[in-house]
Amino acid sequence: MTTHNHYTAPTQFVEANGIRFAYRRFGKTGGVPIVMNIHFRGTMDHWDPVITDGLAERREVILFDNAGVGASSGEVPATFPDTARDAIAFIKALGIGKADVLGYSIGGKIAQEIAVQAPDLVRKLVLVGTGPRGADTAASKSAEIFSATYDPPEHLWIAAHFSPSAAGRAVGLGYLERKHRRGDRSPEVSETSAATQYQAIIKSNEKVDGVLDYLSEIHHPALVVHGHNDLIIPTINGFTLQQHLPNAQLIIYPDSSHASFYQYPELFLAHDSLFLDA
Amino acid sequence: MTTHNHYTAPTQFVEANGIRFAYRRFGKTGGVPIVMNIHFRGTMDHWDPVITDGLAERREVILFDNAGVGASSGEVPATFPDTARDAIAFIKALGIGKADVLGYSIGGKIAQEIAVQAPDLVRKLVLVGTGPRGADTAASKSAEIFSATYDPPEHLWIAAHFSPSAAGRAVGLGYLERKHRRGDRSPEVSETSAATQYQAIIKSNEKVDGVLDYLSEIHHPALVVHGHNDLIIPTINGFTLQQHLPNAQLIIYPDSSHASFYQYPELFLAHDSLFLDA
Repeated sequence: MTTHNHYTAPTQFVEANGIRFAYRRFGKTGGVPIVMNIHFRGTMDHWDPVITDGLAERREVILFDNAGVGASSGEVPATFPDTARDAIAFIKALGIGKADVLGYSIGGKIAQEIAVQAPDLVRKLVLVGTGPRGADTAASKSAEIFSATYDPPEHLWIAAHFSPSAAGRAVGLGYLERKHRRGDRSPEVSETSAATQYQAIIKSNEKVDGVLDYLSEIHHPALVVHGHNDLIIPTINGFTLQQHLPNAQLIIYPDSSHASFYQYPELFLAHDSLFLDA
Repeated sequence: MTTHNHYTAPTQFVEANGIRFAYRRFGKTGGVPIVMNIHFRGTMDHWDPVITDGLAERREVILFDNAGVGASSGEVPATFPDTARDAIAFIKALGIGKADVLGYSIGGKIAQEIAVQAPDLVRKLVLVGTGPRGADTAASKSAEIFSATYDPPEHLWIAAHFSPSAAGRAVGLGYLERKHRRGDRSPEVSETSAATQYQAIIKSNEKVDGVLDYLSEIHHPALVVHGHNDLIIPTINGFTLQQHLPNAQLIIYPDSSHASFYQYPELFLAHDSLFLDA
């Protein structure tokens, strides 16, 4: 049997909820797989292979494009609960009865909604650079970062993921090189799909009475990971998640912004293994 | 050569600053030792042996009674900077040129002052259940916990260290059993010494303009560890430390109060090793 990795795993397809989901799976089989939920404007080719292949040493990793994104069919739903409904259908269509669920940025918001809607499907949650419903975005630089122009354009992702420090920029350049090393990448997210994702973000961050109450019902062990100064989803949101989830561990890394786990991949992988394998 | 542990290490003495310091050292020699700064009303016999012996598997551990505490001579100083001055004299009197410094509760405040006064003496900081100068104590239950009566009296330490959950109480009872297993313990802290420590706490927590500025000058790698709901030094103080220290990692554990590291000893020891051995 060929052992695949981030670069070699073939893109496969599965139908569920009327959507043809594109996905890849690779890594060590036989345990609980980890399903990865990507960020705003991201496809399964936006993950840092250092992270996905690092995870794959100890567990099966499943990357996928949710509805309306990348190589999957369908439309981006208007809310994260609806996106979670599609993710749940996708996971079940693979015949998986129990999964660890990792989400980064809006992927972390979707991961929480998966846990709310299908608690028995989820073993543990890993929530990176994300926030609760009604997130505190007062200090976010997201609008500036995503509306600026970059030369080359893909340097948007250095600004969106990494600390403006020299160390952050160096890691960012390495990330882009690794990301582009795979040839048959999923199509980039269309402007229409991105606009709908943005509406879902606005909707999710509405502040209504009791907006955090749902967190007390997510009893899954959760690892919350945040950067020291997250320019997209401010760091206080990681603290808020830890304080309101009944069983969460929080790790905040030094010198890092939104993609703290890309900034400290070895340390994150060690922390993640301690959490998932406990 | 006999390998000592928490229970068997002999109490030794060294003179510095006119104080006769009582201390014990044990564990794996040859690397950077870790010097442990204990909490309010604590002596070197208040550490959980699971932690000290766990640390000792990978590094030399140094426990000591600071001036006016336990088996050491002298008076408790009126401020933590003065307590740090004595700790620095103690460390240098042992002929140590570079140490990792762990502090728990007010020991963490003293550890910060050690780093401020003797930056070259310190390699890395581990700050557990502590806060900065000008700490936010609005939600603290410290006064209630330390003024209540307990039967037996040593159950004060279950209330002071552990979560009120069933898990917290169970770990607390085990902690007391381990603590009392050593016969030749340091004398308990006198009421006079405790009163002076309390005055130092009040002084340290005064809120003045720029009270957090000193943190930007502590460039040492720091691991900040806090409990989910620290009833003595509220959890927000761990977040504040991480946000103001230039190079700090924060870990907050679920279901835990002040002694989060006693609540999750194996996980803490793994996290601590990843940090100290990096």
